[in-house]
Amino acid sequence: MIKAGIIGSTGYAGAEIVRILLNHPETEIIWYGSKSYVDQRYADIYKNFFELIDDKCLDDNIDKLSREADVIFTATPQGYLAGILNRDILSRCKVVDLSADYRIKDVKVYESWYGIEHKSPELIADAVYGLCEINRDKIKNTSLVANPGCYTTCSILAAYPLVKEGLIDTDTLIFDAKSGTSGAGRSAKTANLFCEVNENIKAYGVANHRHTPEIEEQLSYAADSDVMVSFTPHLVPMNRGILVTAYASLKDKKINAEDIGRAYEKYFRDEYFIRLLGQGVPPETRWVEGSNFVDIGYKVDERTGRVVMMSALDNIVKGAAGQAVQNMNIMFGFEERMGLELLPVFP
Amino acid sequence: MIKAGIIGSTGYAGAEIVRILLNHPETEIIWYGSKSYVDQRYADIYKNFFELIDDKCLDDNIDKLSREADVIFTATPQGYLAGILNRDILSRCKVVDLSADYRIKDVKVYESWYGIEHKSPELIADAVYGLCEINRDKIKNTSLVANPGCYTTCSILAAYPLVKEGLIDTDTLIFDAKSGTSGAGRSAKTANLFCEVNENIKAYGVANHRHTPEIEEQLSYAADSDVMVSFTPHLVPMNRGILVTAYASLKDKKINAEDIGRAYEKYFRDEYFIRLLGQGVPPETRWVEGSNFVDIGYKVDERTGRVVMMSALDNIVKGAAGQAVQNMNIMFGFEERMGLELLPVFP
Amino acid sequence: MIKAGIIGSTGYAGAEIVRILLNHPETEIIWYGSKSYVDQRYADIYKNFFELIDDKCLDDNIDKLSREADVIFTATPQGYLAGILNRDILSRCKVVDLSADYRIKDVKVYESWYGIEHKSPELIADAVYGLCEINRDKIKNTSLVANPGCYTTCSILAAYPLVKEGLIDTDTLIFDAKSGTSGAGRSAKTANLFCEVNENIKAYGVANHRHTPEIEEQLSYAADSDVMVSFTPHLVPMNRGILVTAYASLKDKKINAEDIGRAYEKYFRDEYFIRLLGQGVPPETRWVEGSNFVDIGYKVDERTGRVVMMSALDNIVKGAAGQAVQNMNIMFGFEERMGLELLPVFP
Amino acid sequence: MIKAGIIGSTGYAGAEIVRILLNHPETEIIWYGSKSYVDQRYADIYKNFFELIDDKCLDDNIDKLSREADVIFTATPQGYLAGILNRDILSRCKVVDLSADYRIKDVKVYESWYGIEHKSPELIADAVYGLCEINRDKIKNTSLVANPGCYTTCSILAAYPLVKEGLIDTDTLIFDAKSGTSGAGRSAKTANLFCEVNENIKAYGVANHRHTPEIEEQLSYAADSDVMVSFTPHLVPMNRGILVTAYASLKDKKINAEDIGRAYEKYFRDEYFIRLLGQGVPPETRWVEGSNFVDIGYKVDERTGRVVMMSALDNIVKGAAGQAVQNMNIMFGFEERMGLELLPVFP
Repeated sequence: MIKAGIIGSTGYAGAEIVRILLNHPETEIIWYGSKSYVDQRYADIYKNFFELIDDKCLDDNIDKLSREADVIFTATPQGYLAGILNRDILSRCKVVDLSADYRIKDVKVYESWYGIEHKSPELIADAVYGLCEINRDKIKNTSLVANPGCYTTCSILAAYPLVKEGLIDTDTLIFDAKSGTSGAGRSAKTANLFCEVNENIKAYGVANHRHTPEIEEQLSYAADSDVMVSFTPHLVPMNRGILVTAYASLKDKKINAEDIGRAYEKYFRDEYFIRLLGQGVPPETRWVEGSNFVDIGYKVDERTGRVVMMSALDNIVKGAAGQAVQNMNIMFGFEERMGLELLPVFP
Repeated sequence: MIKAGIIGSTGYAGAEIVRILLNHPETEIIWYGSKSYVDQRYADIYKNFFELIDDKCLDDNIDKLSREADVIFTATPQGYLAGILNRDILSRCKVVDLSADYRIKDVKVYESWYGIEHKSPELIADAVYGLCEINRDKIKNTSLVANPGCYTTCSILAAYPLVKEGLIDTDTLIFDAKSGTSGAGRSAKTANLFCEVNENIKAYGVANHRHTPEIEEQLSYAADSDVMVSFTPHLVPMNRGILVTAYASLKDKKINAEDIGRAYEKYFRDEYFIRLLGQGVPPETRWVEGSNFVDIGYKVDERTGRVVMMSALDNIVKGAAGQAVQNMNIMFGFEERMGLELLPVFP
Repeated sequence: MIKAGIIGSTGYAGAEIVRILLNHPETEIIWYGSKSYVDQRYADIYKNFFELIDDKCLDDNIDKLSREADVIFTATPQGYLAGILNRDILSRCKVVDLSADYRIKDVKVYESWYGIEHKSPELIADAVYGLCEINRDKIKNTSLVANPGCYTTCSILAAYPLVKEGLIDTDTLIFDAKSGTSGAGRSAKTANLFCEVNENIKAYGVANHRHTPEIEEQLSYAADSDVMVSFTPHLVPMNRGILVTAYASLKDKKINAEDIGRAYEKYFRDEYFIRLLGQGVPPETRWVEGSNFVDIGYKVDERTGRVVMMSALDNIVKGAAGQAVQNMNIMFGFEERMGLELLPVFP
Repeated sequence: MIKAGIIGSTGYAGAEIVRILLNHPETEIIWYGSKSYVDQRYADIYKNFFELIDDKCLDDNIDKLSREADVIFTATPQGYLAGILNRDILSRCKVVDLSADYRIKDVKVYESWYGIEHKSPELIADAVYGLCEINRDKIKNTSLVANPGCYTTCSILAAYPLVKEGLIDTDTLIFDAKSGTSGAGRSAKTANLFCEVNENIKAYGVANHRHTPEIEEQLSYAADSDVMVSFTPHLVPMNRGILVTAYASLKDKKINAEDIGRAYEKYFRDEYFIRLLGQGVPPETRWVEGSNFVDIGYKVDERTGRVVMMSALDNIVKGAAGQAVQNMNIMFGFEERMGLELLPVFP
């Protein structure tokens, strides 16, 4: 039984870590960290946990927390963790960071896309990018996991096998992503009010969304060459779920649906959390809601010589909290699915 | 390990029984019964179960099923089970019926509200009304449970302690109920299309909804006298959840909020699945979604001499599948919460 | 052609006044007042008006405005107008106030329910309660209309004929109301975020909502005796619409559906904006969305001796901006429907 | 005053033609045609028109109708009109066809994408593709307008100026479209039930949706060469609205945002129904809901050398009924905006 603390436990991702860990047989939550709700009962903020959690919120003293916990999850604003983390803390406990602070290896790329100075660039090299299905072995041996973004997890997994196998022209890669509104967080903004989001769909961050360099870096590793992509996120009037529709030209006219299917099978056949739907079957966010699954389908379009790659996940499970716990499981040598066999809830 | 069969497994309630039983440590599903999808893979109909269920749908041969299963769940149209059930079947296995066929003791009342002839009235006396928190002892010893309706579970639990303790004038009882759309089922009807339900709220079945006599019968037992109520259901543009707002005049001006609170505590304090929010705290469906909880709050209004009773549950969990499994647990002597410690999913 | 100014034009009700007046043949908007957006282009805040409105937002200098405009609409927080209005202003132009400041004749009742001191109680007697179908004649001759609340318009109209005709026992009157989320306004609050409202229904302000005394006062006039009611509002995951389900015991067992129908016909038969659906036809908010209509249906329940009164309207049209313009039309002697023949938009 | 008949008036597009024509000063509806609701009152099917329309539904006898009406709108299933239309009918009255029957000039392309035989190919040459802003002059002189599809209107208008001006490489054109659910029609299908659509987003018709050849044909005219595109529609949980996000590589690295802006201005500056938002401003469906506007924005991405074209419209107004009436106005020499100055309704 290990002890876990959560800094930023009162955001949507933090609350989802709580939901998952409450049913995790090897983990106990000892610290519900919060900036805004210190001393308030956690179950007064998230009343779904009424009679299930008695704890009050604590502050975000990571130094103290690192002396009491085996693992710390940080679901904090960009730049926050980079400003307080150090090797001392990492020597005492493991950290899974849900912010972007340690995801990008080139600190200049980070600083340019995020518009903030990185306060602990020396730790970036220590961090492992926690896309479990790709980096499992490295995750086992690190104290610091940079948990991937929600859009990036969905985007990278859709394209990874085809990039890795050299089946698509990476110069033509376009990711058109659609997300539920929980991805926008729980802070009070007019743009996220019910009446502003409901009965609407919009693109945002066009050509400058911060998940772009993260996708590019990971796919560059897969391609073993620099990859530059178009990425457009959209806001959808639903609570949970991300759907990515990705487009790329096939490298060769002879590449057919079976070739594509084989590539997906090669990398993901044995992955419990990735479900391969095959040619012509579009994934839907409703089939993964509440679970840690990523559903992937594709369609080879012979007319245009393109392949359409499609993937769906729950943005606060596999796109955030679920993957964070999956990373924890790997880091501590637990069964990777432990606490994560959450069945999708429908309808 | 017991064996379970589900007749009507492809409706929303049936699919929720599947979701719950898949994680139940003492139960194995051996029969996915269906009228419309025989021989189709269950996971093709409910793709949330892709790679989780391999079975194909079977027919609804209850006689054959009763020779293979220890328990049968029937989530079938009104009148269907009454037409095929008999003592032979009940001698071989236990039955939890999610339809209304055996809920009402007076067969004439059933026939008048449902407009159909009851084909096996001789079995009605054998059936136990499966409102677990009220009838637990009787459920232990029966082979046939009439699982309560979704509206009725929510309505009865909100009022039961106050009726039982004689705190309210039952002649003034009014239940105004609001339900998510999954309660309308999965069959294709224009009235339930997205564009007809979305951005709308309406009452329906005003003064003649079939759950009325069920509420009245159970509250009459509690009052030990005939109770007649007004019940109005409404359709709300959301998937899951029922909220009941009930009104009644207090029997006496001296009755105050503490008295009401004490009555709720007396009957429900030790009930895991009932969460008492107390005076002035309105329950919300989002806090119970996906779980077997019923949240109950109330407000004594001294101006009008009324108490407003409020309750919220997930209509396809505590209002259908969850309570059905809770009944199964009681019938088989399992821990009552087994497989049902589902945490509410929010947002 | 008259000149209109709007103080509080950047809230949802203010923006709906804009939408209506833009198509009003006898009115020109000369002042888009705002607290938060002074000097910003109105069409940057409400982009539906892009290329339709060039004006920038002005401040809320009512004194200046009253020298330029013929009519002022105030869609401002409670207490604001009471603090700045005076007879001077009213001598120069007419005012339609969408706040509650002048709705309640007894200033102590106002101060007790709203918890604020009334700064211009001497003007309350001058104000006419702007429920057009009831107070049309008084509205013609006043300079100050207190535009009714959204819930109150819907509630009063549902019950008024039956109260006026003495058909129901007013001691038993209960209003259970359900509202879309635009009624909660456009200010940034966590409770009104998409993910908090979506997939949820809740009651709020139970037994203490501020629209209660307004309903009671108007129905007391109709009954010619003091009326006290229960009123419970609920928040529904949709943008627009209010549905009221009201309950009361019939005064006499002999009163039947025709009697009730006759009462509604007597008062509302000739009212263009009130559509009488008759016995057993529940109104639905989708059928009035975007329009100034109020749909009213009812059901006499002989079992319980009650009548269920049901009404639906669009909370920001007939419940706010539409009725405000209807009041303006009456005050200025325009055709009452002018600019208000908005067809309901479905789906 | 002309007389209009609608065949298929009880679908969503048909009902929207009704909503628009009721306020059209020069048109009277004389025929509410229906297949399923003959002899039923139109206002019983669409209760928003209660007390506004007294007519009953008539059948779909186009021959009789053509002797009584000046214009016929057909909102009918694919292939239906092609089976009954002839030159006789067209000699007596004008026809605006909202189905796809006469949109595609090459009958083989039509038959291959729609999988049905075209029964009146000889009329195809007579038909004008009714994209008003592009084909206005031809529309003036025809008796048969093929009203464009909802997706196609939105897609073509987003790309037209850039294709026409040769600014983008048409071999790289990708249209990722997202639609509200009213586009799926009003017939009862399980896939379109509230609980199936709500809280979900999915792609469908990937690489084989029937609007693809329509987009390709029109853009080929603009490019003066064959254009082949990728087109992917998605279903969004909202009633109305289409958003198109389109991608293409710029022909030349020197092309910048101003060049793109100039191209849009050149073709659409004077178009009332097209609102140009400019560089970096993404359109949103909420700002056009209920109106005949198309909002277009774009973003030049210098990193990737692509331009992202974005457009939003209301699928049953500019995407169907609104454009149909706009075509009627042009055909009859009415002011093009007549009856169409519908303000967008928000929220």
